[in-house]
Amino acid sequence: MKYNFSAGPAHLAPEVIKEAANGILDINGSGLSLLEISHRSKDFMSIMDEAVALTKELLNVPDTHEVLFLTGGASTQFAMIPYNLLPEGGTAVYVNTGAWAKKAIKEAKRFGNINVVASSEDKNFNYFPKGYTIPSDASYFHITSNNTIFGTQVHDFPESPIPVVCDMSSDILSRPIDVSKFDIIYAGAQKNLGPAGTTLVIIKKDAAARSGRDIPTMLNYQTHIDKGSMFNTPPVYAIYVSMLAMRWLKKSGGVESIQKRNEEKAKMLYNEIDSNPLFTGTTAVEDRSLMNVTFLLTKPELADEFLKAATEAGISGIKGHRDVGGFRASIYNAMEVEGIEKLISVMKEFSLKTA
Amino acid sequence: MKYNFSAGPAHLAPEVIKEAANGILDINGSGLSLLEISHRSKDFMSIMDEAVALTKELLNVPDTHEVLFLTGGASTQFAMIPYNLLPEGGTAVYVNTGAWAKKAIKEAKRFGNINVVASSEDKNFNYFPKGYTIPSDASYFHITSNNTIFGTQVHDFPESPIPVVCDMSSDILSRPIDVSKFDIIYAGAQKNLGPAGTTLVIIKKDAAARSGRDIPTMLNYQTHIDKGSMFNTPPVYAIYVSMLAMRWLKKSGGVESIQKRNEEKAKMLYNEIDSNPLFTGTTAVEDRSLMNVTFLLTKPELADEFLKAATEAGISGIKGHRDVGGFRASIYNAMEVEGIEKLISVMKEFSLKTA
Repeated sequence: MKYNFSAGPAHLAPEVIKEAANGILDINGSGLSLLEISHRSKDFMSIMDEAVALTKELLNVPDTHEVLFLTGGASTQFAMIPYNLLPEGGTAVYVNTGAWAKKAIKEAKRFGNINVVASSEDKNFNYFPKGYTIPSDASYFHITSNNTIFGTQVHDFPESPIPVVCDMSSDILSRPIDVSKFDIIYAGAQKNLGPAGTTLVIIKKDAAARSGRDIPTMLNYQTHIDKGSMFNTPPVYAIYVSMLAMRWLKKSGGVESIQKRNEEKAKMLYNEIDSNPLFTGTTAVEDRSLMNVTFLLTKPELADEFLKAATEAGISGIKGHRDVGGFRASIYNAMEVEGIEKLISVMKEFSLKTA
Repeated sequence: MKYNFSAGPAHLAPEVIKEAANGILDINGSGLSLLEISHRSKDFMSIMDEAVALTKELLNVPDTHEVLFLTGGASTQFAMIPYNLLPEGGTAVYVNTGAWAKKAIKEAKRFGNINVVASSEDKNFNYFPKGYTIPSDASYFHITSNNTIFGTQVHDFPESPIPVVCDMSSDILSRPIDVSKFDIIYAGAQKNLGPAGTTLVIIKKDAAARSGRDIPTMLNYQTHIDKGSMFNTPPVYAIYVSMLAMRWLKKSGGVESIQKRNEEKAKMLYNEIDSNPLFTGTTAVEDRSLMNVTFLLTKPELADEFLKAATEAGISGIKGHRDVGGFRASIYNAMEVEGIEKLISVMKEFSLKTA
């Protein structure tokens, strides 16, 4: 048995993987692989329709918003957002909460004035900035809801007088959100949604091309709204597996149910970190991520040995990002409680053995 | 038995599909699915390295060029090319050979002056323009090597005094090419290379960001050259299946060998079209595509019945594009001679039955 704590691409439910392999061999009893049929075929169109419908249902997306499946990852969104929302000479507001927020800011600066209204860079992003005021005279406010590398997450979104854009790449579908409060939500699929290769975008219809710029066709949200994400050949298989993962999520009780499980899983692991003298968390307790649990050894010289013990127990993907060091357990929706229990038991045993 | 003549996403060799399903269940005996491991893992890095190495080997790519696996399809390349190659106020030269060339031209016009030096639009793109002169005072010359919709293909690339950019989405790896003659070759994978979800780009190193423009990071070829197509999470699975298809191609004798088979397959089918009174080709004979064989019934009222007969024989994907009508048999690398024989036998039988 393997326990996959990879930060992304990340663990998928075993039944999703099994079904994902079946679709390669024969989709819907057609005698053809999903990889070789037209994206305009009924078999794929129904997959695309179901992926969109499941997103709408699971996140309670209002009719004011469209659901798109694009490519290029969050990194492409970093440019599409200002291209569509920031007029020439305009200003946008960003919060700097870590590596991905910084990349979003860097890209937006090509397009206009970027006001970084808050940052946690002073403490290597180990907390989530709070208590700042969002100016009302800017085009939009951009926030990253969960910071995969640093293990922080926003638990209360700030009230904003201007349209809100949120990078939810690492916590989309992990908890209920009020979609109506966002003009754009975007998420690379490869963490909490599905495999690498597609990017979910939930966009308020009137946000597309709002900037008045001459936008390249593929970077214009209106292109994809008009064509239902089928302007050109979509990433067929990545959308299929994302759809399967959302089917699984629905069957598992939906987003409210998975939130409870996510809270339970995170609580178990943080409790161990806080109570076991060999381990210590890296972030402010109130800003801890329910998705990416970052921790250090209080005896750093034992790190290699701990990694070895974990690997021998079938645990993979827990080496921390180089910007934080130590360890990171990514415990997205698909991670079972059993995996958390396994990791905790390894931590307990290792602590006793090395005490 | 199914015979899949889909124009794209298109037929893949059965052994590629089988291996593609195995990688979903367990990659390299790791106990993990390829869908859920890090793109920085050794298992995926070796896949990416092999995909690049196979492209270089199969197409004899010189050291002056880089091989990239990107996302966004040819449609994204339509913008990336002028963004990188066309300076502000500059001119580029395009040939208009059909729907995809038109889209490339439309997009390039956002960036500068586009000189459409030749077009076959006067005859609904049923031939490939020849005998035009490429001006020497433009930034680049753009050509589409094969026109999936209209069934035409360039058999002799024109000599160009300026850098050549070629959309080879539907005939990449179908024949040897002299890569050194191109500054950029690009191809959506989903026709002759692999599944939907990745775009192959072969680029002369000094072509990236040559325009002097402020290019969004993800649209700048230099970003992807510097990071070996790993600037952000790549479309892991689409690259894996493309790599498997190239392994298969190498095992099948490589590009020169597949070219012979492609020529043989196309000759068989065109011979039937030319000798069977019920069928007629749609394009100039000298410009016929070896990839997409377009044809009409001389008794158009029998079209539905012919489609039915073909479907009953296990043939799928031969309905022609609405811009041409009739039928289209896409016979990319992976199509076996057996599939061609099956289609020909259906054509013969149907012709006798309805004579």
